[in-house]
Amino acid sequence: MLEKTTKINFLYDFYQSLLTPKQRNYMSLYYLDDYSLGEIAEEYNISRQAVYDNIKRTEQMLEQYEEKLLLFQRFQERQQLFKKIEEKLRAHHIEDEELYSLLKLLEKLD
Amino acid sequence: MLEKTTKINFLYDFYQSLLTPKQRNYMSLYYLDDYSLGEIAEEYNISRQAVYDNIKRTEQMLEQYEEKLLLFQRFQERQQLFKKIEEKLRAHHIEDEELYSLLKLLEKLD
Repeated sequence: MLEKTTKINFLYDFYQSLLTPKQRNYMSLYYLDDYSLGEIAEEYNISRQAVYDNIKRTEQMLEQYEEKLLLFQRFQERQQLFKKIEEKLRAHHIEDEELYSLLKLLEKLD
Repeated sequence: MLEKTTKINFLYDFYQSLLTPKQRNYMSLYYLDDYSLGEIAEEYNISRQAVYDNIKRTEQMLEQYEEKLLLFQRFQERQQLFKKIEEKLRAHHIEDEELYSLLKLLEKLD
């Protein structure tokens, strides 16, 4: 379950801009603020089942966006490459802090 | 005009997976294969205006996806950083071909 949650968190990070405000509200309460389904239902005065359905549908949308755009997959592949590149630079005893900063900047642009 | 065309080409590259097959057909005939609106209309047996409207709508969708996901903008920012990093490596007289290959791989993962 933890793995699944982590993945959804990443997908939410990458694709939240494609969701509706309502979808974003439920998702961030559930996944980021750790509200229970019952608490969200109470907050919005709707049924627990409606919240559950909305969140499940949103998760499916996130998975579909990932199937199409592969942002999370490429992010992971890039992370691996960054690690290798940094190791190589250290192996060459490069002490240029600006170079490492540029790499960090590049990594953050993901 | 050329600049605009180039931008749409990039946006199409990044977001084509989010379009419908029909949208992809028209866009690739018009932008990649350089068909005229009239030729596409003839091919699909619809009006020139219908093709035009579809392509304009698709271009707007591509721009909206870019506003939300910024894939093209980040791609450009990354290109700048890659250039600086490579210059720095050359300045350090690093001749490690594997390192440059890793960077190229990273660049291609965009």
